[in-house]
Amino acid sequence: MIRFESDYLEGALPEVMQALNDTNFAQTPGYGEDEYCDEARALIREKCAAPDAEVHFLVGGTQANMIVITAALRPHQAAIAAVTGHIAVHESGSIEAAGHKVVTLPSEDGKLTAAQIRSCVDTHWADATHEHMPQPALVYVSQPTENGTVYSLAELEAISAVCREKGLILFVDGARLGTALVSSDVTLADLARLTDVFYIGGTKLGALFGEALVFTNKAIARDFRYIMKQRGGMLAKGRLLGVQFGALMKDGLYERTAKREVTLAMRLRRAFEAKGWPLYYDSPTNQQFPIVPDSDLAKLAEKYTFSHWARVDDTHCAVRFCTSWATKESDVDKLIADIEAL
Amino acid sequence: MIRFESDYLEGALPEVMQALNDTNFAQTPGYGEDEYCDEARALIREKCAAPDAEVHFLVGGTQANMIVITAALRPHQAAIAAVTGHIAVHESGSIEAAGHKVVTLPSEDGKLTAAQIRSCVDTHWADATHEHMPQPALVYVSQPTENGTVYSLAELEAISAVCREKGLILFVDGARLGTALVSSDVTLADLARLTDVFYIGGTKLGALFGEALVFTNKAIARDFRYIMKQRGGMLAKGRLLGVQFGALMKDGLYERTAKREVTLAMRLRRAFEAKGWPLYYDSPTNQQFPIVPDSDLAKLAEKYTFSHWARVDDTHCAVRFCTSWATKESDVDKLIADIEAL
Amino acid sequence: MIRFESDYLEGALPEVMQALNDTNFAQTPGYGEDEYCDEARALIREKCAAPDAEVHFLVGGTQANMIVITAALRPHQAAIAAVTGHIAVHESGSIEAAGHKVVTLPSEDGKLTAAQIRSCVDTHWADATHEHMPQPALVYVSQPTENGTVYSLAELEAISAVCREKGLILFVDGARLGTALVSSDVTLADLARLTDVFYIGGTKLGALFGEALVFTNKAIARDFRYIMKQRGGMLAKGRLLGVQFGALMKDGLYERTAKREVTLAMRLRRAFEAKGWPLYYDSPTNQQFPIVPDSDLAKLAEKYTFSHWARVDDTHCAVRFCTSWATKESDVDKLIADIEAL
Amino acid sequence: MIRFESDYLEGALPEVMQALNDTNFAQTPGYGEDEYCDEARALIREKCAAPDAEVHFLVGGTQANMIVITAALRPHQAAIAAVTGHIAVHESGSIEAAGHKVVTLPSEDGKLTAAQIRSCVDTHWADATHEHMPQPALVYVSQPTENGTVYSLAELEAISAVCREKGLILFVDGARLGTALVSSDVTLADLARLTDVFYIGGTKLGALFGEALVFTNKAIARDFRYIMKQRGGMLAKGRLLGVQFGALMKDGLYERTAKREVTLAMRLRRAFEAKGWPLYYDSPTNQQFPIVPDSDLAKLAEKYTFSHWARVDDTHCAVRFCTSWATKESDVDKLIADIEAL
Repeated sequence: MIRFESDYLEGALPEVMQALNDTNFAQTPGYGEDEYCDEARALIREKCAAPDAEVHFLVGGTQANMIVITAALRPHQAAIAAVTGHIAVHESGSIEAAGHKVVTLPSEDGKLTAAQIRSCVDTHWADATHEHMPQPALVYVSQPTENGTVYSLAELEAISAVCREKGLILFVDGARLGTALVSSDVTLADLARLTDVFYIGGTKLGALFGEALVFTNKAIARDFRYIMKQRGGMLAKGRLLGVQFGALMKDGLYERTAKREVTLAMRLRRAFEAKGWPLYYDSPTNQQFPIVPDSDLAKLAEKYTFSHWARVDDTHCAVRFCTSWATKESDVDKLIADIEAL
Repeated sequence: MIRFESDYLEGALPEVMQALNDTNFAQTPGYGEDEYCDEARALIREKCAAPDAEVHFLVGGTQANMIVITAALRPHQAAIAAVTGHIAVHESGSIEAAGHKVVTLPSEDGKLTAAQIRSCVDTHWADATHEHMPQPALVYVSQPTENGTVYSLAELEAISAVCREKGLILFVDGARLGTALVSSDVTLADLARLTDVFYIGGTKLGALFGEALVFTNKAIARDFRYIMKQRGGMLAKGRLLGVQFGALMKDGLYERTAKREVTLAMRLRRAFEAKGWPLYYDSPTNQQFPIVPDSDLAKLAEKYTFSHWARVDDTHCAVRFCTSWATKESDVDKLIADIEAL
Repeated sequence: MIRFESDYLEGALPEVMQALNDTNFAQTPGYGEDEYCDEARALIREKCAAPDAEVHFLVGGTQANMIVITAALRPHQAAIAAVTGHIAVHESGSIEAAGHKVVTLPSEDGKLTAAQIRSCVDTHWADATHEHMPQPALVYVSQPTENGTVYSLAELEAISAVCREKGLILFVDGARLGTALVSSDVTLADLARLTDVFYIGGTKLGALFGEALVFTNKAIARDFRYIMKQRGGMLAKGRLLGVQFGALMKDGLYERTAKREVTLAMRLRRAFEAKGWPLYYDSPTNQQFPIVPDSDLAKLAEKYTFSHWARVDDTHCAVRFCTSWATKESDVDKLIADIEAL
Repeated sequence: MIRFESDYLEGALPEVMQALNDTNFAQTPGYGEDEYCDEARALIREKCAAPDAEVHFLVGGTQANMIVITAALRPHQAAIAAVTGHIAVHESGSIEAAGHKVVTLPSEDGKLTAAQIRSCVDTHWADATHEHMPQPALVYVSQPTENGTVYSLAELEAISAVCREKGLILFVDGARLGTALVSSDVTLADLARLTDVFYIGGTKLGALFGEALVFTNKAIARDFRYIMKQRGGMLAKGRLLGVQFGALMKDGLYERTAKREVTLAMRLRRAFEAKGWPLYYDSPTNQQFPIVPDSDLAKLAEKYTFSHWARVDDTHCAVRFCTSWATKESDVDKLIADIEAL
């Protein structure tokens, strides 16, 4: 079976594994207070053109979302997210478990607009009974979104502007950030400039695990390590995160890997289009969502794995194919040939 | 600098790294639903003589303690722990953040007694206003304790008996369990038989990270994966935990490693005693706590790291030296020679 | 100004005030463990034909909803509610603050259907990734709803049946229960028979404050007083709740008061209809929601208060007029005359 | 049976009941946004010489403690309290349920000292692993304490000074504040000047229920009404609190009532001392704690209720007798006569 159902099916990039092997016997303090983490932090600050940013490492995305939002909000405050946002649909209620409502706004493609955010906040404050409703205080967006779509720089600038005007915290979930960096006009420096906090995802882009959080808002970052520890997010052998991000951030490995993923995904996309399969979302990144006849899906399922996304009509489903750092060109060739032959 | 301040200063055992390297390109489903995890679970069940036990893997100890207690208690219930218990003193209030009070009982050596537990529970229920106090419902003990001491089988049986009589959940934190397995008469099968849930620590015994939870109480384990996910504890590439525990549980690697750690620690202990340094705790495991004159500490600190534990008097401190899977025999030789030469 | 904007504008029924005055100097134990509470509990059990039901008193509705749901759910579980349900829209995120997601289902009139509930639960369990989503475990319905509408006995029986089939807890918010008792075919005995827990609202029906919770599901009620106390819901002078519910439950005062409220509301409803003002919801209870031209609203606002509910079009709003135990017949007369004269 | 076991055995002062009766039919907005509340707030600000203070009303003390601490702390922060503090021992873990640890300091008489607080905070920050422990951020003291003792102005000023130096929030639980106002040199204006937030207790001093919170720290008070609502503390008929505090704060009723309570308590105290019964605590307020031979207690228990506090030795118990606004002088006479006759 050749697997395309997600981008966390394999271990880590050879360069990352090599770095872990090379440093295995080094002795360092625990909890992220080692030189590998410091070095990785310095690399990240430099790439973000944010010399004053505070950088923390966590193990996974749900953990990162939960801990950042826990640190950022007072008890009565809520996060705004697209109805498709990962925190709204696929994290087992982690934000609610931390005490906060996720206020969801409609979205066709997984993105929010500045106008939606403005309207949501204005509506809240205009209501005479707003004290009886959670107070929207943070905007959560994913770059790329859960549907593979990306915000343009203009869109992100508009969102950032409304957040600053309204006193909202802007938090960008970058679980697959690399693929957006190579397929949009938004750079790491833009993210550092426009958001309060965002993260560079490692788990879904070449690391065994790990997300690198970049805080430019110091008020949220204050005492963040206490909250990391309290919520089970402070890795004892924290240097594992530093070692991995050190490798990813050096010599363009992160971007090069993302570029390769996206290139392979675009080959798949062209094959879907050539076959006449419409795309459920217009994704320029490593997740592709063709709408496929059920009969064809059944045949593909004999050799390939993919994720069912949505039933479109009685005879068609939208499904997801992902590429990853480990996807073999030869497997993409096989899949394309099999699609053509259907 | 030769480091002895903790047992999580290095990466992982060569066998564990080898297993991670060997499986790096294998494609598996995420979230612990892969064959490596299944295989490790089967090995653990077998070693525990608990064919029906439910086994889950988490990344770290604080996370494991927080998620188990979250799953086990109703909102008004409390955990009983020794005043020195890790959940009581060194997890940034994670149990309180999950909504539960930690009721602490005094302890000289880090251990609780069955009589203390009985008295605590009886006192609660005898109080006419018990509804105005958190209800003790779970007993948390560490094997070995944070002070390196161990429960004997008789002690653990007495605690288990009082828990069952009083309807309390018994949860054993085994962050360093291996060292207790080789220095007490308590086996994995005893733990499975006597507790509701316990864990086999990997982070502090040869893994990069990871704790293997063994539930014999199915009511607590019910829906545990939801709660793991909700609290940020479900690793995307869950197979990393299965691969590591697979390696540790095969061919006696876990116990062999623990045995080596303890053997080196006993050499240190004898050197401390030979020097006339009293031991702050009577630890048969890999943590040793000599009481050392400040002047000698200053000299040792030029070449070695260790943890300050407690000031004993104006001129003496109790400190902690730990051995680990990676401790070099030659480093122990050097330290002993330097102690003798003081 | 004559006020119609809500049904908690005044104090309490004269009979309730009399009972409070009469018992003011009596000495009783605190926290609801007094004879007045016991007497009120007995009356309620009798009226509910539920001799084994457990009855607890709380001060207000948000408190009741929050504490019941806190007691009923495990950490990963969610409440299902109509999108208009009070817990979903008007309690400042109290359920989320207690750690639980409110899963909202669409509703035109404020009511849920058994089919919706079944579909929601089946969808959850059918999803291969259901562990990544909050688990629906409790159904929250209001009788009457926030929009004044009521469930028929057949509707409630269907909901109860699906809850029992699917293992869901059924919780009925009866903040205005009296008005549904006199305008639907659902009795207190039906509620006790069909739900796990419901409450009889006092705050909005003649008491100074107070909600009487009736539990037929003993598992949820277990240790409920601990959780009441923990969440700030155990009134020190608990007898005030017993005294008030004692008065309300005796001699049909509760139902008689509800009947009067509804009768006055029906007079308003007929006046709205006679004027040609459509009704936004078809409410047989004490809340009425006419759609009124803005120009008429401006004139009414000079003499009367009412609640703005929704803008219907550029020149019309839906507004809410409530009657209460204290509404004067003469005030209703005046309002009707003024409407006719518009 | 004549009851002395607590000070919440009866209803409310006649003046308070009269005010409730007089205003019963008045129509006002809900949720504390009425003129009675505004008037009571103005009276309180004036009595506190704090024209800018923000005043909010809650129903009870546990609720007040929980909601204030919820509003005041970030997730990783802890409250410091005496080991006997109400939040530490008698609120069913409400602070922990809100996510925060209560760090308890030893106390013989229920009071904390400035030196203890300083030491606690300094110890925290001096520990290299302080991020692994809850961060002390708020000091909770009761005036009078749970043991009837009171802080002098000098003591409170010292505590306030250390709190300001160390950046700690100072919160005074005034559930029985009136009795301290008439038995110490600390005034309402001192409390407003020296604390961040405190409350004037009504439940235990002449009201049916109610606590008036006075915030001089605006950062904590920000959005406080959202949090009141979210935690079930916003009374629908909020004017009931305004009406009661309006009555209590006018014409010295609150202080006069406290004075009477304390005067009666001092008569009891003298009777205990005359009998040769030592006092367990040296209380100048309405709670008195004589140490009584068991045989005498048995006789008293035939006619009087009181609270068992602590077993002192095999034949003596410390018990609590309370006076309240409603205590009859004749009942005190009877009790004293019966003590003399023992």
